[in-house]
Amino acid sequence: MAEQGGPADLSTKGAYVSGGKEFQRDTNYITTRITADGRDGYPVEPGRYRLVVARACPWANRAIIVRRLLGLEDVLSMGICGPTHDRRSWTFDLDPGGVDPVLGIERIQDAYFARFPGYERGITVPAIVDVPTGQVVTNDYPQITLDLSTQWKQFHRPGAPDLYPEHLRAEIDEVAHRVFTEVNNGVYRCGFAGSQRAYELAYQRLFTALDWLTERLTNQRYLVGDTITEADVRLFTTLARFDPVYHGHFKCNREKLTEMPVLWAYARDLFQTPGFGDTIDFDHIKKHYYVVHTDINPTQIVPSGPDLANWLDPHGRESLGGRPFGDGTPPGPPIPSEVVPAAHGPLGDASRR
Amino acid sequence: MAEQGGPADLSTKGAYVSGGKEFQRDTNYITTRITADGRDGYPVEPGRYRLVVARACPWANRAIIVRRLLGLEDVLSMGICGPTHDRRSWTFDLDPGGVDPVLGIERIQDAYFARFPGYERGITVPAIVDVPTGQVVTNDYPQITLDLSTQWKQFHRPGAPDLYPEHLRAEIDEVAHRVFTEVNNGVYRCGFAGSQRAYELAYQRLFTALDWLTERLTNQRYLVGDTITEADVRLFTTLARFDPVYHGHFKCNREKLTEMPVLWAYARDLFQTPGFGDTIDFDHIKKHYYVVHTDINPTQIVPSGPDLANWLDPHGRESLGGRPFGDGTPPGPPIPSEVVPAAHGPLGDASRR
Repeated sequence: MAEQGGPADLSTKGAYVSGGKEFQRDTNYITTRITADGRDGYPVEPGRYRLVVARACPWANRAIIVRRLLGLEDVLSMGICGPTHDRRSWTFDLDPGGVDPVLGIERIQDAYFARFPGYERGITVPAIVDVPTGQVVTNDYPQITLDLSTQWKQFHRPGAPDLYPEHLRAEIDEVAHRVFTEVNNGVYRCGFAGSQRAYELAYQRLFTALDWLTERLTNQRYLVGDTITEADVRLFTTLARFDPVYHGHFKCNREKLTEMPVLWAYARDLFQTPGFGDTIDFDHIKKHYYVVHTDINPTQIVPSGPDLANWLDPHGRESLGGRPFGDGTPPGPPIPSEVVPAAHGPLGDASRR
Repeated sequence: MAEQGGPADLSTKGAYVSGGKEFQRDTNYITTRITADGRDGYPVEPGRYRLVVARACPWANRAIIVRRLLGLEDVLSMGICGPTHDRRSWTFDLDPGGVDPVLGIERIQDAYFARFPGYERGITVPAIVDVPTGQVVTNDYPQITLDLSTQWKQFHRPGAPDLYPEHLRAEIDEVAHRVFTEVNNGVYRCGFAGSQRAYELAYQRLFTALDWLTERLTNQRYLVGDTITEADVRLFTTLARFDPVYHGHFKCNREKLTEMPVLWAYARDLFQTPGFGDTIDFDHIKKHYYVVHTDINPTQIVPSGPDLANWLDPHGRESLGGRPFGDGTPPGPPIPSEVVPAAHGPLGDASRR
C-alpha cells in the first residue's frame, strides 16, 4: 500500500501533508476476494495469481510474512517492486529490463488499468494480480492476509501455524483495530500532520497506544493467546520501521524503539522468528520513505543510521512461555530468489560503524 | 551565530542546503576585540557593553555559559533574542514591545548597520554591542569567550574558575579545533549536506570524532586537565542539542547521545554543574532549528520528543576524580531576569509524558 491512499491521490494533491489538517488515510480499496468457493469469480488456485509487493511498504510486508509463515511460495508467486517510486506508483525496477517476468509489465498500475481503465484511487501494494488476464484482483490489504490464512488453507505447508484461530478472532480483531488506528496509521498521522496541533495530538495518541502495548506485552509473549497470530504480524511491520524511519522522519520521537524495553524485546523476538526478520529489507525501507516523501524531506537524503545490528541481540522473551508456532513448525529458509540481500539486513552496510 | 554564515547569506542564497555541495560555514566575523588595554578602541569597562545572545544558538550558548561561570553578569549585561527569526536574523521579540530595553532596537541587525551601513555578512549571535554608540563591536564567537576569560579578569567573581589556563592553552586549542571542525560544525555538515555522498562523508567524520571523544573521556572527567575549561564549554553546547535536534533534524543518527554512555554521562555531569545546564532552554533550541530551517523541515513542525528528564539522572563521573572549579567555587544561581523558565528545562512540558 502506498501512503495516504497512494500516488493516485498525490497526482492531484501533490503532497502527503495538507496544511492545517490531520492526515486522513484513504481506506477505499478493491474488495474483490479470492476465496475457496470462488464466490467473487476468483477461486483459490495454485499458480494462477501473483502477489505484488514492495519490501519497503509496511502493509505489503504483512502479506510477505503471512505467505512465508504459511508456506504459500509455491502456489502464489511474488513480484517485488523497488523501494522508490514517482507519482505513478511502484515499479518493477529491480527486475531485468524493469519488467516483471511473470506479468510482463513495468508498473503495477498497468494491472490496475487492465481491470479498471482510468482507475483513480490509490495504486497500492500489496496487490494480487490474476496472471491469465493481467488484471488486479484485490489490494484490500487487511483482507488479503486473512484470506491467505482462511481461504488458502488446503495449500498451506505442513506445520503452518494458524494465524487467525477461530476462538481468538474477536480478540485479534479488537487488538488489530486499535493497533491499526493508533500505531500502524498513527505514525503516519504524526509524520503527515498539517499543523503543530494535529501533530501533537497524533503523538499523544501514538505513545498512549505504545504504553498500552508495553503493558499488555510485559508478562505475555504475544499479543493474543500464546502463539504468533495475525495481530503480531500487523504490529511487527510498524515496529521494524520505527527507529529507521518513524522516529526521525515522522517525528515519533518520545523514545526510540530501542528505549522501550518491552516492545524492543518483543520486536526482536519476532524478528528472530523465521518468516519475520527474513522479510525485512532495511535498505528498501529507509530509501522508500526518505526519497518518496519530498514534502517532508525535500533533500531526499537517506540517513546512515541507526545501527541496526542489535536486532540480533538476545531478547529473553522465551521465559514468558508461549510457543511461536503452536503445534506447528517454523518455515524453512526463504526461496533463493526471495532472500533479502545480507547488506540490507541488520548487519548491512547502512548500519556498519 | 546563525548557521551558514547567517541570514545575510540566506537573503541571497535563500537556503541552508546547496544542491550537490558540502556545507561550508562562513567564518568571516568582525574581529574587533574588547581588551584590557583597549588596543582596538574598545577597552574592557563595566556597564559599557551588552552581550546579545539567543539561547537557541550553540555558539551564543558558549558565551552565556562563560559569562555565568566567571560571574560577569553585573559588568556585562545580556540581551536575549527569541528562538526563531526570518531572513533579517534574530529579533528581541521576547522583550516588551519587541524592543531590547537597553539598546532600544528590535533586531540585532540594527547594531550591525549602526557600525557598518549595508553590512553584508552574517548577522549573528553572540554579538557584543557598545551601548553608548549602539554599534556592534564583535561577533567573533571563538574570541569572545577567550577574551571574557583573559581580558575581563579583573572583573571576574571571587572563586571564578580559570577556563583557559596558560599552561593548558596549547592542548585546549588543539582539542577545541578538532571539536569545532568535526563536532560543533560537523553536525551542520550532516544536516545541510547537498548530496547523499556529502552527507555520508560528514556522518563518518562526525561519529569518528565522537568515538575519539568517548575514548578520551572514558577515564578522564574533563577534556583537558582535571577541571572544566573552555574546551568543555565548546563540546557541551553541541551535546546538549544532540538528541533534541541534531539526531533527527540533521540526521546524526548512528545513536542518540543517550546511547553513547561515556559522552552521555559527561554531558549530564556538565549539565548538572552550575553555569551549564541552567543556561539551556530546550524549548528555544527545538523551536529555532525546526522552524527556521524550512528547506530541511518545510512543515516547521517541532517534535514533541525526546523525553529530556533524564538529563538530571546521576552521572557517576565523580569517581573519575577531577575538581570542576579547581581551587575556585561554583557560581551562584542565575540572576532572576536570566532564569530559564522551568517549562523549558529538562522537566518541561515538551518532555513530559
